[in-house]
Amino acid sequence: MAAATVEVTWDVEYVLWAPDCQQRVMIGINGRFPGPNITARAGDVISVTMNNKMHTEGVVIHWHGIRQFGTPWADGTASISQCAVNPGETFVYKFVADKPGTYFYHGHFGMQRAAGLYGSLIVLDSPEQPEPFRHQYDDGGELPMMLLSDWWHQNVYAQAAGLDGKDRHFEWIGEPQTILINGRGQFECTLGPARKSFEKLLNENVETCVDDQKMCSDQEKCLRRSECGPYCPRSQCAPVVFNVEQGKTYRLRIASTTSLSLLNVKIQGHKMTVVEADGNHVEPFVVDDIDIYSGESYSVLLKADQKPASYWISVGVRGRHPKTVPALAILSYGNGNAAPPPLQLPAGEPPVTPAWNDTQRSKAFTYSIRARKDTNRPPPAAADRQIFLLNTQNLMDGRYRWSINNVSLTLPATPYLGAFHHGLQDSAFDASGEPPAAFPEDYDVMRPPANNATTASDRVFRLRHGGVVDVVLQNANMLREEVSETHPWHLHGHDFWVLGYGDGRYDPAAHAAGLNAADPPLRNTAVVFPHGWTALRFVANNTGAWAFHCHIEPHLHMGMGVVFVEGEDRMHELDVPKDAMACGLVARTAATPLTPATPLPPSPAPAP
Amino acid sequence: MAAATVEVTWDVEYVLWAPDCQQRVMIGINGRFPGPNITARAGDVISVTMNNKMHTEGVVIHWHGIRQFGTPWADGTASISQCAVNPGETFVYKFVADKPGTYFYHGHFGMQRAAGLYGSLIVLDSPEQPEPFRHQYDDGGELPMMLLSDWWHQNVYAQAAGLDGKDRHFEWIGEPQTILINGRGQFECTLGPARKSFEKLLNENVETCVDDQKMCSDQEKCLRRSECGPYCPRSQCAPVVFNVEQGKTYRLRIASTTSLSLLNVKIQGHKMTVVEADGNHVEPFVVDDIDIYSGESYSVLLKADQKPASYWISVGVRGRHPKTVPALAILSYGNGNAAPPPLQLPAGEPPVTPAWNDTQRSKAFTYSIRARKDTNRPPPAAADRQIFLLNTQNLMDGRYRWSINNVSLTLPATPYLGAFHHGLQDSAFDASGEPPAAFPEDYDVMRPPANNATTASDRVFRLRHGGVVDVVLQNANMLREEVSETHPWHLHGHDFWVLGYGDGRYDPAAHAAGLNAADPPLRNTAVVFPHGWTALRFVANNTGAWAFHCHIEPHLHMGMGVVFVEGEDRMHELDVPKDAMACGLVARTAATPLTPATPLPPSPAPAP
Repeated sequence: MAAATVEVTWDVEYVLWAPDCQQRVMIGINGRFPGPNITARAGDVISVTMNNKMHTEGVVIHWHGIRQFGTPWADGTASISQCAVNPGETFVYKFVADKPGTYFYHGHFGMQRAAGLYGSLIVLDSPEQPEPFRHQYDDGGELPMMLLSDWWHQNVYAQAAGLDGKDRHFEWIGEPQTILINGRGQFECTLGPARKSFEKLLNENVETCVDDQKMCSDQEKCLRRSECGPYCPRSQCAPVVFNVEQGKTYRLRIASTTSLSLLNVKIQGHKMTVVEADGNHVEPFVVDDIDIYSGESYSVLLKADQKPASYWISVGVRGRHPKTVPALAILSYGNGNAAPPPLQLPAGEPPVTPAWNDTQRSKAFTYSIRARKDTNRPPPAAADRQIFLLNTQNLMDGRYRWSINNVSLTLPATPYLGAFHHGLQDSAFDASGEPPAAFPEDYDVMRPPANNATTASDRVFRLRHGGVVDVVLQNANMLREEVSETHPWHLHGHDFWVLGYGDGRYDPAAHAAGLNAADPPLRNTAVVFPHGWTALRFVANNTGAWAFHCHIEPHLHMGMGVVFVEGEDRMHELDVPKDAMACGLVARTAATPLTPATPLPPSPAPAP
Repeated sequence: MAAATVEVTWDVEYVLWAPDCQQRVMIGINGRFPGPNITARAGDVISVTMNNKMHTEGVVIHWHGIRQFGTPWADGTASISQCAVNPGETFVYKFVADKPGTYFYHGHFGMQRAAGLYGSLIVLDSPEQPEPFRHQYDDGGELPMMLLSDWWHQNVYAQAAGLDGKDRHFEWIGEPQTILINGRGQFECTLGPARKSFEKLLNENVETCVDDQKMCSDQEKCLRRSECGPYCPRSQCAPVVFNVEQGKTYRLRIASTTSLSLLNVKIQGHKMTVVEADGNHVEPFVVDDIDIYSGESYSVLLKADQKPASYWISVGVRGRHPKTVPALAILSYGNGNAAPPPLQLPAGEPPVTPAWNDTQRSKAFTYSIRARKDTNRPPPAAADRQIFLLNTQNLMDGRYRWSINNVSLTLPATPYLGAFHHGLQDSAFDASGEPPAAFPEDYDVMRPPANNATTASDRVFRLRHGGVVDVVLQNANMLREEVSETHPWHLHGHDFWVLGYGDGRYDPAAHAAGLNAADPPLRNTAVVFPHGWTALRFVANNTGAWAFHCHIEPHLHMGMGVVFVEGEDRMHELDVPKDAMACGLVARTAATPLTPATPLPPSPAPAP
């Protein structure tokens, strides 16, 4: 099948939207939130002409899971792969949808992802790259993709100001107000008594859910896409309905672009068979519910094998003490047209997702993911280079930071890719050395740090092209006693093999032999559990500058990431579009007067 | 006296602040709102090293009233005089404080001024440029400058989204929640019963003001600069106290950087003598209260000639039907140290500012401003060029716009100054012609437009260096019947002479002879009254690109302005700092690979 080009034009702009029945400003695309779905076939070229219609903010868009071989400038990471696109400017993202799978896109500048800049990206299989589980679901059995996110009523500028606050002025973002499914949620009890069952799960004084299943009486409010509630004919917060026919088997794609939350998806009365993770085949396994961390994606097969009715889909918070009511969607054995209005809720109460603090259950789910046997491509047997990354929470000059081997990531004004491409790397950032590739042997990962200070730097790891790299993510205790958080780490430009997980401190002598070199899953995002470690391997075969970071938005904001520069000796060969690097040092080399001029000193006004 | 350099370093950053006792995110400087005061002496060089510490927003700062002779790139207007400074970048504003007067600075990119990016700029007189009214107030008689603003609880991104909304999605910003004096106000009744008297003035259901003059009991909230109210020891919303000694005469500087509101300042039991307007001498006149439009500044002399006590200063909204409680400050005949805590309110009720819709009173005040007789410098007798600017409200593709001669201003990605400096003017914007310099003779300014459509353009007026330019601002009816709004127009790079005002349509044959060429006041901001006209004259002797626009932030956002390019034949001689123009077409000319490269087409991944 000949490759096609999927071409779209997007205006990135502020929209007033009510994703959870409360109106706020969000970053939308073409006047809507979330952004449009993109669907391409493997091998197609995707071309997105992005107009920045915001008034003062730059913007970039990252294509999460797309590896960007040959087009590293299209990865959409500000200060790493390109300059942020200025207000009023246009940038064309053009890249190959390199393999089938479930992906998404999102802003990667400041906290713009949390402001609503995201959407789904589906790459269908092709004759050249068939999916082995395609025959297991029915024709027409692709359900709409389920893109999960979390939402705060406080805007991201305020969130950032709180995170940047010094000493007593630090303000953590807290738990989200609402979980969104395809950009739709219901704040607290907006959906009425169906939510009652969740109240007991939450510590907070959630408003008692009363029967407010009434149509909106304020027509004007409805028309202005406002706060009229889920029963309004043009509601932006009505639950998503997934329509199925009894007896058929469906493929449901699920991805998470949450700012913070680990979510769990549970469908009333239905099991799911996991077949894909992050665009890679997984040896199928059956579950009652799935955990999904920010940055991850799955495909599950879902058999409509229950009696014809409507069923609740619950999406609840795990891993952190939840203060947010689970999100709800509806699986409807309907006539295929049962979309609201009128909105019909399933009978009974929505299923309750597993206990937030049942970490063993989360580990069991994650550990059970293996490469699919009949398409398994095991990793190279040995690595050329090992990098150990200690994850710590720190204080720097009274400000909270997250650090890797005691270095908290800051980003330069000139993107790394442009700096290397133009030979400006020695002046564009701190190129005096690499960040540390290991941490002290006596560091106690089970206790708060003896010394909580850290440093900030924009140094990068510089990887030999083609080298095999092992990375061990090492979790540690936070500043608070006996607390360690879960971090989902996402690598740009690559999938990696997940060789193994463990508790406590990684010890090569004890653990290396037990790693899974036989059928480790390929992924682009892997979690490191509290007080644990995770071992990864990848081949540095992609010339470019690639972020590797915790996908929790405020953690990245606070420095939790590193940058891998690969094939720097080949960077000058890249045909980088001019627009991608028109900032920082690169831009300044141009801004020279065309005619040598005698400087005019500042001077008072001429006589009137 | 030798000129000095006033050097400061500023971090522009988001701050969580409670200017009216409710915490929001604002754009602050060095962790505070409003920004630091700058005080210089006439002839001094002011050098501001500005670090943009915001995460995704560019920023510029305009020095309102400073004419920037020889330094047009330091005028701080994005897309006109410079590129917005990107996040993480630094820009140095260096310019001469060219004449004594009362100025201020503010953001001039998007609606960042309304987000809180502003502060006071005072230029003291010097032996070379003495102020003739200096002997009329006591030594040490400079009161702190009073910088007025208005404040919305909805952030500017949401405001912009509402203004940009199409058809039913348009949302006007509405009236401000609070008026601020030096960044301090009290939302609704926060200040307690002292505000009761205002309730009857407002149409809205203002919360009944009860006695809540109690200290904050939540110590933690106080320390976190939050919403504890004006009686909190570290309150950010306590009223400003101006301390005076009985018998002395003071100079009070007043300026307005409101987003929308025309304000009136009235001091209980005291008259004021106006001596300065926009950094120019005014023939002194005595008033009970003063009107001040956004963009204007005044100095008044204030005699502390009442019995020792505390007096209210009221700042109320005029010109629009007010829905905002007046702001309050305190004039205290105290011991000079009577700053809170503890906050002591004056006895009795604050004075009530004149009726909002008494337009005749407003006109009388404005018309009474004349150049000071003993320093009067009348304008050139005749103009080389006349430009008539019709102000209309329009609809364009379902969106509300403000237009000038049926052209609504849009701004290019490459700043005009850089485009001309680098010879890129033919590709950087629409240089096919100038915008129209007049409007149809049969346009009826007293009625809604027969055809409300308009066009948008980035064309500019190109003025011959040294030419004398007359501008007549012509107001008109809005889209609504019998409504015409007041617009304060501000010119960058210049003062202009205000030759006259009138009602209805300006008719050269009838009105030209009646213009005041003898003692017109020099100003940088002039109001055009509803359904009226205002005639101005200036000398185009300042090489640069200068905005001339309505100073109402949402009106400028909606296109209400023009740009004057002066001395384009001299632009290439300017020693424009590289950083000022490192964007748009200028930046792109640099972003060329250093080594000619064979393009690598986007490609699928290499075999594993």
